[in-house]
Amino acid sequence: MSLKKVILKTKPEGVPSVETFEVVPDSLSSLDDGMVHVKIQYLSLDPYMRGKISGRHLTEAIHPGDDMDGEVVAEVLESRAPDFAPGDTVTGMLGWREEAVMPADALKNVVTHGLSPSLARGVLGMPGLTAYAGTVNLAELRPGMTAVVSSAAGPVGTTVGQIARAKGCRVVGIAGSDEKCAWLKEEAGFADTINYKTEDLRAGLDRACPDKIDYYFDNVGGDMLQAVMERLAVGAQVVLCGLMSQYNDGGMPPGPNPAFTIIARATIRGLVVYDHAASSADAVAMVAGMIKAGDFAVQEDITDGIENASTAFVRLMSGQTFGKTLVKMI
Amino acid sequence: MSLKKVILKTKPEGVPSVETFEVVPDSLSSLDDGMVHVKIQYLSLDPYMRGKISGRHLTEAIHPGDDMDGEVVAEVLESRAPDFAPGDTVTGMLGWREEAVMPADALKNVVTHGLSPSLARGVLGMPGLTAYAGTVNLAELRPGMTAVVSSAAGPVGTTVGQIARAKGCRVVGIAGSDEKCAWLKEEAGFADTINYKTEDLRAGLDRACPDKIDYYFDNVGGDMLQAVMERLAVGAQVVLCGLMSQYNDGGMPPGPNPAFTIIARATIRGLVVYDHAASSADAVAMVAGMIKAGDFAVQEDITDGIENASTAFVRLMSGQTFGKTLVKMI
Repeated sequence: MSLKKVILKTKPEGVPSVETFEVVPDSLSSLDDGMVHVKIQYLSLDPYMRGKISGRHLTEAIHPGDDMDGEVVAEVLESRAPDFAPGDTVTGMLGWREEAVMPADALKNVVTHGLSPSLARGVLGMPGLTAYAGTVNLAELRPGMTAVVSSAAGPVGTTVGQIARAKGCRVVGIAGSDEKCAWLKEEAGFADTINYKTEDLRAGLDRACPDKIDYYFDNVGGDMLQAVMERLAVGAQVVLCGLMSQYNDGGMPPGPNPAFTIIARATIRGLVVYDHAASSADAVAMVAGMIKAGDFAVQEDITDGIENASTAFVRLMSGQTFGKTLVKMI
Repeated sequence: MSLKKVILKTKPEGVPSVETFEVVPDSLSSLDDGMVHVKIQYLSLDPYMRGKISGRHLTEAIHPGDDMDGEVVAEVLESRAPDFAPGDTVTGMLGWREEAVMPADALKNVVTHGLSPSLARGVLGMPGLTAYAGTVNLAELRPGMTAVVSSAAGPVGTTVGQIARAKGCRVVGIAGSDEKCAWLKEEAGFADTINYKTEDLRAGLDRACPDKIDYYFDNVGGDMLQAVMERLAVGAQVVLCGLMSQYNDGGMPPGPNPAFTIIARATIRGLVVYDHAASSADAVAMVAGMIKAGDFAVQEDITDGIENASTAFVRLMSGQTFGKTLVKMI
């Protein structure tokens, strides 16, 4: 049985499709000194990849013909490096593939506190750290605040919302399906939700946030950010983390008028998760502790098999996934 | 010698002239309990008055025959109110007149640290507090930062720039005339300036800020804010204070794309000066201290005598004044 990987076939215009990618045979480098041979368990699919394949992400672009890049959770099979031993759970940017032989410095041991390794790329990984950075490092959340989060059913959004809830905020999630909204209220303890596909966003915000909005964690930008900025309470805190609304088009559309920031005396902060690496252990400990205490709901969207990775990515980019989107290598 | 005041004689068509106003005799109300008798030292002339005499300002219009309204600095002559004593320096909206008897609640005591009372309506008044709030309360300025301020030659801008300079920043001012730019560099210690009327704004920012922009105090909004946001350094701080660019039209044009905030991991804050009233004494003490140390340049445009107030106002409205425009009552 030959190993497989996924490459970028064409640079997509607009929303990517399964034809954007191609599954091709893969081969392993030799296990030289300092190298580690791993079997990938889970590939993480994330919206930032959309920017990388159109050359707009901060890190290096992916061009047609290149291997798809992406973060994985893997198990060490063989190791010729001192820091890794067979059976270790590791993470790294190993790409859309089934196995890899990598230099040890491309891998990082992860701690999952006895929980599923898949969580290492979700609420116990970068999404969890992103949420921690946006709620703990870059904001000051206090009991009684109205906290709104967009893309609320994603791993960042659910973690933001559940940390905010733990800090005593009244949490309102914006999501794109009734199923997600029901889960947020019933499982994740959100006080209210807005299904922006079936309810007018502004009417929903007025309904769910009668005392306006003290905290907003934005994954979307565009008109969603505009609608929230129109409803900020005095002293509001806004964390700008993602711009889902503009990842699929090349332009830089304008944003909200600065008057909304002035009127609310708001603080708006830009979040780039890489800046918060030093908080990783704290973020993992906080979220793992909440999971073990039964105070944190996790939703994962797991697709089996590398052949289905492109389908899963297209579902992610068109808002059809629910929870942390992963491909399980079987 | 009878007291004098200025009334609006005719509603001006186009640019006001000295014939728009008339100096007439004034008389004082009786000094009842709770009233204060003051001698006006300086009348502040401000562009918003133009709107009031043509009925376009939000506050009450001034009609032909009405007293001209305006903020003054005055000395208390007699007081029948507990909070004011003869010799106190006070400020209030007392109009274009030489003396007044006013209810105590129309007056506010001001501290000028032995400096000219005229400063109480400028760098030691609300403009100075605005600058203090934006540089001390809402930002953390450190040596070596590149600080940019728009409307740099106004009382807020000159104070922002000179506080930032005192904190070790390299200060770049944006202003609208070569005379103002020369003064900012030669008198106020700005490292560089951009005359946005004669130099392309983006080229000027690139020239004057080769290491990008760490701090921006914005009085303007619009394209000036956009151009600065495009050039933010990582970790930049932006204070949004005014929106000169949109005061003349009723709309809410869009602002910069949120990506600029994310890319720079910037912090954007909205400033409303009334929130910072508790810092008034600190702001006055800081600026007065810098003036006394010879480390703070102030530009005032002072005309002597109530008979010349209309001439000074016509000069202000035709862009011939430079610095805070005042009439000294002699």
